[in-house]
Amino acid sequence: MKASPAIAALILASSIAHADEGMWTYNNFPSDKVKQKYGFESTQQWLDHVRLSSLRLAQGCSASLVSPNGLVMTNHHCAHQCIEQLSNAQKDYVASGFFARTEKEEVKCPVLEANQLTQITDVTDRVRAALKGLEGKQYNDALKAEMSKIEKECATSDDVRCDVVSLYHNGIFNLYKYRRFQDVRLVFAPEFAIAFFGGDPDNFNFPRYDLDVSFLRIYEGDRPAKTEHYFKWSPEGARDGDLAFVSGNPGGTSRLNTVAQLEYQRDVALPANLLRLAELRGLLTDFADRGPEFKRISSPLLFGTENSLKGLFGRYQSLLDKAFFASKVAAEQAFRSKINLDPAKKRTYGSAWDAIAKAEVDLKNIRRPLVYLEQGAGFQSQLFSIAKTLVRTSEELPKPNEKRLREYADSAMPAVKQRLFSSAPIYDDLEIATLAFSLTKLREMLGPDDPAVRKVLGKDSPKEIATSLVKGTQLKDVKLRKALFEGGKKAVDASNDPMIQLARKIDPDARAIRKHYEDDIESVEKKNQELIAKANFEIYGTSNYPDATFTARVSYGQVKGWIENGKPVNPITTMAGAFERNTGREPFALPASWLAAKSKLNLGTPMNFCTDNDIIGGNSGSPMVNKNGEIIGLVFDGNIHSLGGEYGFDPALNRTVAVHSAALIEALGKIYGANRIIEELRSQQGSGGK
Amino acid sequence: MKASPAIAALILASSIAHADEGMWTYNNFPSDKVKQKYGFESTQQWLDHVRLSSLRLAQGCSASLVSPNGLVMTNHHCAHQCIEQLSNAQKDYVASGFFARTEKEEVKCPVLEANQLTQITDVTDRVRAALKGLEGKQYNDALKAEMSKIEKECATSDDVRCDVVSLYHNGIFNLYKYRRFQDVRLVFAPEFAIAFFGGDPDNFNFPRYDLDVSFLRIYEGDRPAKTEHYFKWSPEGARDGDLAFVSGNPGGTSRLNTVAQLEYQRDVALPANLLRLAELRGLLTDFADRGPEFKRISSPLLFGTENSLKGLFGRYQSLLDKAFFASKVAAEQAFRSKINLDPAKKRTYGSAWDAIAKAEVDLKNIRRPLVYLEQGAGFQSQLFSIAKTLVRTSEELPKPNEKRLREYADSAMPAVKQRLFSSAPIYDDLEIATLAFSLTKLREMLGPDDPAVRKVLGKDSPKEIATSLVKGTQLKDVKLRKALFEGGKKAVDASNDPMIQLARKIDPDARAIRKHYEDDIESVEKKNQELIAKANFEIYGTSNYPDATFTARVSYGQVKGWIENGKPVNPITTMAGAFERNTGREPFALPASWLAAKSKLNLGTPMNFCTDNDIIGGNSGSPMVNKNGEIIGLVFDGNIHSLGGEYGFDPALNRTVAVHSAALIEALGKIYGANRIIEELRSQQGSGGK
Repeated sequence: MKASPAIAALILASSIAHADEGMWTYNNFPSDKVKQKYGFESTQQWLDHVRLSSLRLAQGCSASLVSPNGLVMTNHHCAHQCIEQLSNAQKDYVASGFFARTEKEEVKCPVLEANQLTQITDVTDRVRAALKGLEGKQYNDALKAEMSKIEKECATSDDVRCDVVSLYHNGIFNLYKYRRFQDVRLVFAPEFAIAFFGGDPDNFNFPRYDLDVSFLRIYEGDRPAKTEHYFKWSPEGARDGDLAFVSGNPGGTSRLNTVAQLEYQRDVALPANLLRLAELRGLLTDFADRGPEFKRISSPLLFGTENSLKGLFGRYQSLLDKAFFASKVAAEQAFRSKINLDPAKKRTYGSAWDAIAKAEVDLKNIRRPLVYLEQGAGFQSQLFSIAKTLVRTSEELPKPNEKRLREYADSAMPAVKQRLFSSAPIYDDLEIATLAFSLTKLREMLGPDDPAVRKVLGKDSPKEIATSLVKGTQLKDVKLRKALFEGGKKAVDASNDPMIQLARKIDPDARAIRKHYEDDIESVEKKNQELIAKANFEIYGTSNYPDATFTARVSYGQVKGWIENGKPVNPITTMAGAFERNTGREPFALPASWLAAKSKLNLGTPMNFCTDNDIIGGNSGSPMVNKNGEIIGLVFDGNIHSLGGEYGFDPALNRTVAVHSAALIEALGKIYGANRIIEELRSQQGSGGK
Repeated sequence: MKASPAIAALILASSIAHADEGMWTYNNFPSDKVKQKYGFESTQQWLDHVRLSSLRLAQGCSASLVSPNGLVMTNHHCAHQCIEQLSNAQKDYVASGFFARTEKEEVKCPVLEANQLTQITDVTDRVRAALKGLEGKQYNDALKAEMSKIEKECATSDDVRCDVVSLYHNGIFNLYKYRRFQDVRLVFAPEFAIAFFGGDPDNFNFPRYDLDVSFLRIYEGDRPAKTEHYFKWSPEGARDGDLAFVSGNPGGTSRLNTVAQLEYQRDVALPANLLRLAELRGLLTDFADRGPEFKRISSPLLFGTENSLKGLFGRYQSLLDKAFFASKVAAEQAFRSKINLDPAKKRTYGSAWDAIAKAEVDLKNIRRPLVYLEQGAGFQSQLFSIAKTLVRTSEELPKPNEKRLREYADSAMPAVKQRLFSSAPIYDDLEIATLAFSLTKLREMLGPDDPAVRKVLGKDSPKEIATSLVKGTQLKDVKLRKALFEGGKKAVDASNDPMIQLARKIDPDARAIRKHYEDDIESVEKKNQELIAKANFEIYGTSNYPDATFTARVSYGQVKGWIENGKPVNPITTMAGAFERNTGREPFALPASWLAAKSKLNLGTPMNFCTDNDIIGGNSGSPMVNKNGEIIGLVFDGNIHSLGGEYGFDPALNRTVAVHSAALIEALGKIYGANRIIEELRSQQGSGGK
């Protein structure tokens, strides 16, 4: 990232007039700025329609409704896990692609959940009232309890999902009410080879030639859901210079973080995560190399690992950029100087940064046990996750809703149960490999003499323990999971399943370190970030956007290339380029379907394109729409410079990367014979540039 | 590393009176300081005897002569590669240990070379004269040419090895003349399980319970070499508080590096190396898990990878220590201020730091091609190394000695030939795995569109290429290597061996990036480091020690624990502790021989101990001797705080870790029945504390 020092200053300043920066909330969209720059007026009705036509996939992606019959468009990589879970050694839909020729052939994804944001309510005053005068553990407990309470009141049925969302780092609290869809079925997916053409080498790069799409359908009462709001299809698609909107759910940014928090990321968390992921990548690479079935069962995990590795490395590089980091330091100093000029503000806010800095030192000291014992790095296994969920629900569900760990609040339980009772296959070999790996790392990180490590390992080796646990547990049986869940604490305590026993044995240690983190560190961060947010409002006003929180946001921008090493990058590629880049070898091997259809294709069809919209991970699968609210593309990536977007937006370089709407139609029709989908999309086609 | 800001200042100051700091050259040992602190006078005769009783293992370790018949003591891990090369699927000496019951059973190691330092001559004036007035490429070329010339004049036969050594970053040039031994045979090695008891988890930690020893013997004319100088054996061994000397070859330190160079390490080189090693570690971990033979053939590489990973991580952490780094910055600023006070000095030296800083920026920009195309990271394969050596020797040897790449100068050729014609086994599976891995990284680091990458990969995948190269090459045949070497350029150019062809194809790119590095970056670093070294001498005098350069050094110190998290660490462990730590599972599994002998052992025998001697990687295998020049221990590691020793010495925490001489005798006798060795050691036993 080559941000000028001006960038970070802009982030804290009140006006971002010239850059298409910002992941704006739906209730604070800068329509005036858009009108001023692009001459287009985004009315409330327009915004509501876009919001209601957009979806969030609860597992971490975005999507859109593209027909009145519940047809959903998202990325292939957002449905990759589902496609893999529906596959087996005989029929590998990841490799071959999938197309349901009739509605009957549409198959349910084991663990997909789609959310449609129906309402946003400001609950800041209510949360503030509950927090008044509190600090430390009391502050944190009260905050979580009040959030769970509000969510429970709102979530009147399992079809309703309610999340209290903290915006501007506890500056504002909004209640997001969603319609929840848990019956999500797979309609179409191309071959992985074209969905992720170029693989890891081309990931986060542009020019690009990917058909990273899948179509799903949401069902209600075993029938396709009737969806009033959906996006029509643009006849032209994206053109250079077009105004473009992205509606999606950026996962998280740290643009308002303090310098101490950024230093913690740069010097502690990011290097540690990168090293763990790199080692896991090496392990999985060799695992996949053992044979085709090993490759098939490990490919989603390897894909996710490589994607995280590359993404986090980009963030890390941006924080190592001296000019960029200096700009962050300068902006914080300027802000603090302003605070300190006013004695009242200084008294109220002046110490917030130092308090956070101290919390970061504490966090550094407990990071390893926190991450390895509680946050999963020491027990990387689906079966262990299931066991832990059973142990925790047996402890938590008997408690009053607001006293529980947040992830077991009533409002969260539909998602917990969906995961817990999923019929998705679990593979012994992969489970043993990842569990042995993570237990080895647990020992490495905490040391062989750590009491928790001794409790887990005893005198056995990580590999022996992983093998006996995975071979010995019965938790692959969904019925047993249901019985243990319904039997509650008594059943779980009585279980002699070895994985349950391990989860029970380590739970006190995991809870203790989490409690320490939440009571003594997280509470300090939150309380003081809230102070900083308030000070920010007082000094700079409220005309800015909050950090991303995996909630609905709109960004605006235009189809636009950039200058790389002095050379302009054309913002639009064509299908011809995919054939030029084809080597016939993974990850640059076009699938047979493409090679066979080549002569039928219009090779001049736009394939991928880039825009200067401000997005981040979580935006994958977001619709890219024009001012008519018509689909012109499907967001699936950012360029390499977008990775620093975690900490700041560089308008000169940061680009969103999308599949062009025309490529989707061309491929669906001429390569996949998926006319059923085209008709469903086209029957709703927009009227074009009105 | 928790160094106080005072530490780095000390490094540049002229006196290190209170700390047992320093890796001293034999011709500048601070005998007066030792006498002042410990009351012992190290005479020239004493120093000469210690130097001549010490050995360097050219592959990267230290060792010592311990009998008049050429018996050599070093670490197991220094002979690990030899032990593995002498093993096969049927007889695995790494696992079982090795003991030659008679001289006849002593087996030649394929690629070990031992060097005895017989003479040190100052050649500074001669080198300076050759460099006078030169800069950039001319400076670098002249420096290398003059060094090669001096070495060639000195190396009158293959039994003589001569290296011009740059000390104090080109502040002083010394000619080191060695007696070279290439016939080195294996006499004894214990099982890997006890040599590296505790494995990676305990590596760089203390308390410790390792028998990290091997005995070798140097031969001349097919008979054990008669060695006038050798260390006697101390009857008592090391005791808490004893004065202790370490004579060995610390590989390299960066204590005199500029802040810009340290920043380059912290922000660029170390993270990149760590990530590559972590990924390789993961790959090799799974590779070893495929089966016992996979494990056997990959264990030395995994061992080396984990050792580097942990070592470099420690360095990285020391540079991330804010107080320590700030002390480096402050020391440099203080030094520069002194320079700038004197207009003449300012004119001569003032710009050296900025010139180096600029070179570091350039280095960052070319690091990837340099490391991946030229320095081996992109072609990790023994067969490729052989091919590259053949291609390069065919190009270099016809040139005049002083015009060649340094590693093909006449003085270096005996070592080159030993490696090239080694009969050590090469394993296809491992070769394919590491070559495919490194080709994949090459593509990742340079990008799939890089011309050199395209040249190497064409349309094939890294795995396909690695497989066809390893399966297709004939270079496992030592006779073919000899024929190609002797046939010179004509034979190499005519070869249709695919590995030779690859090495030939990529050589121009590799040479080009190396030339750029040497002409434009390395030369700037060297020239300006020389200026800084001169300024350092002018301001602080010459009573300091130079950075380590894998040449003979002596350090002094005492047997001494430290305070870890407020608790004292006892400096000596016992054999009983090894049995307490035994879990029966790798890497905490004592071998059967130990379990069987337990009742015979005196469990109170000291096992390992630590001292505050200043050492670093390369010192492995160094003798630890008392003031009588008697063996009291065998250096094999440092504690975790020693890893920051790359950049500075912290006397409070940095500790050397050694096997106790008593444990060696106890184990050789009662566990291994190696009385032949004990007699050879004991017949020369010292007279004790005179």
